[in-house]
Amino acid sequence: MRTRKKKWTAGELDNNPLIMRGDAPVAVAGGARAFHLELGCGKGRFITEMARLNPDIRYIGVERDPTILAAAARKAFEAASEPPNVSDIATSIDSVMPFTHATINFPAFIIAEASELTSIFTSGSIARLYINFCDPWPNKKKWAKRRLTHGNFLKLYEELLIPEIFFKTDNRQLFEFSIESLSARGWKLRNVSLDLHAGEMPDNVMTEYEEKFSSKGMPIYRLEAYK
Amino acid sequence: MRTRKKKWTAGELDNNPLIMRGDAPVAVAGGARAFHLELGCGKGRFITEMARLNPDIRYIGVERDPTILAAAARKAFEAASEPPNVSDIATSIDSVMPFTHATINFPAFIIAEASELTSIFTSGSIARLYINFCDPWPNKKKWAKRRLTHGNFLKLYEELLIPEIFFKTDNRQLFEFSIESLSARGWKLRNVSLDLHAGEMPDNVMTEYEEKFSSKGMPIYRLEAYK
Repeated sequence: MRTRKKKWTAGELDNNPLIMRGDAPVAVAGGARAFHLELGCGKGRFITEMARLNPDIRYIGVERDPTILAAAARKAFEAASEPPNVSDIATSIDSVMPFTHATINFPAFIIAEASELTSIFTSGSIARLYINFCDPWPNKKKWAKRRLTHGNFLKLYEELLIPEIFFKTDNRQLFEFSIESLSARGWKLRNVSLDLHAGEMPDNVMTEYEEKFSSKGMPIYRLEAYK
Repeated sequence: MRTRKKKWTAGELDNNPLIMRGDAPVAVAGGARAFHLELGCGKGRFITEMARLNPDIRYIGVERDPTILAAAARKAFEAASEPPNVSDIATSIDSVMPFTHATINFPAFIIAEASELTSIFTSGSIARLYINFCDPWPNKKKWAKRRLTHGNFLKLYEELLIPEIFFKTDNRQLFEFSIESLSARGWKLRNVSLDLHAGEMPDNVMTEYEEKFSSKGMPIYRLEAYK
């Protein structure tokens, strides 16, 4: 993947101030406000729109693929009505999203695997986790462990004391799996929808995948899980 | 309903030995084997077929509507390959389904509302509860309490120490509601299917409704809930 990286990607990864770097664990400054994190943010449409709509919440998009994340960060930077004035490389999220600001309408981004979350964030710093249209790893049982709603990942979210998971997918089998997996670990399921676009969804922000699949008439599944 | 009752219905209700009568609480004889109960058995196709397929399990169909139950009991009586030889009115389920018999391939029936279960059965006597295509009481929030998966009914099943609920429906909103309701009371959800007939279902026994709806291509929702 890296060898096919476009030239602008490298520059974006080096210079876009919305991309978090460094090895210091990210903690909530002052403990007053926690982050809303999207795991697997892809091209960032969802997290960028959420940040625009909710300027009093700090959003972070996490994506394992640097090329995709670079595109997300560029779009988010361009879309920010009040672009961040950060010239140096950020080593802590606090320098990108200072909590002294009253409102911030853009997200931050981190290149990371789900398994790295516990080394990046301190427990209690993530107030809500969004998982949208993650890879369903279909058909093969041996791949179930890679699904972001597998029990092993839920354990990791629990270690981080994440109290809420908001989950969307177009994949029926993944949704069935996720209900079972969350239920088995004692998460309470609320606002379950088996056809999100058939009902009222006043605050729904669509992802790229969601627009594509729902425009084809495919049902979108959604749930909220609480610990 | 009673005034329009057909003549044969009254006779069936009086004389069919598969229909349980009397006020004595039903307990598991010897405590060795517990009942599998279908709440809202309708015309009895499901429970009768289950009894035929699993002669080592004792099945009971519960239905509030006497006319429908009479039809269910007649069909089950006629279908039993070894019809019960009971000439008197049964006052205890033990006289209809004596546990000294090695195998019995027909169900018993009880005319009752769900709310009456705790006065009919002793705690621990029901090993599994089937709820198939119950009335979804759609659209109106004030009717939610009548749904057989409402928290108030779950409390009642919990009082009876029922460890397993197997639930099927064609109604999406009812299934969403049921996931939330079961989850809220700590039931673990397993073998969740959002399109039962799209996957493998080696042991699935269809109800009358299920055949009708699935033949129209409508998805059938199913789950198992465990305490």
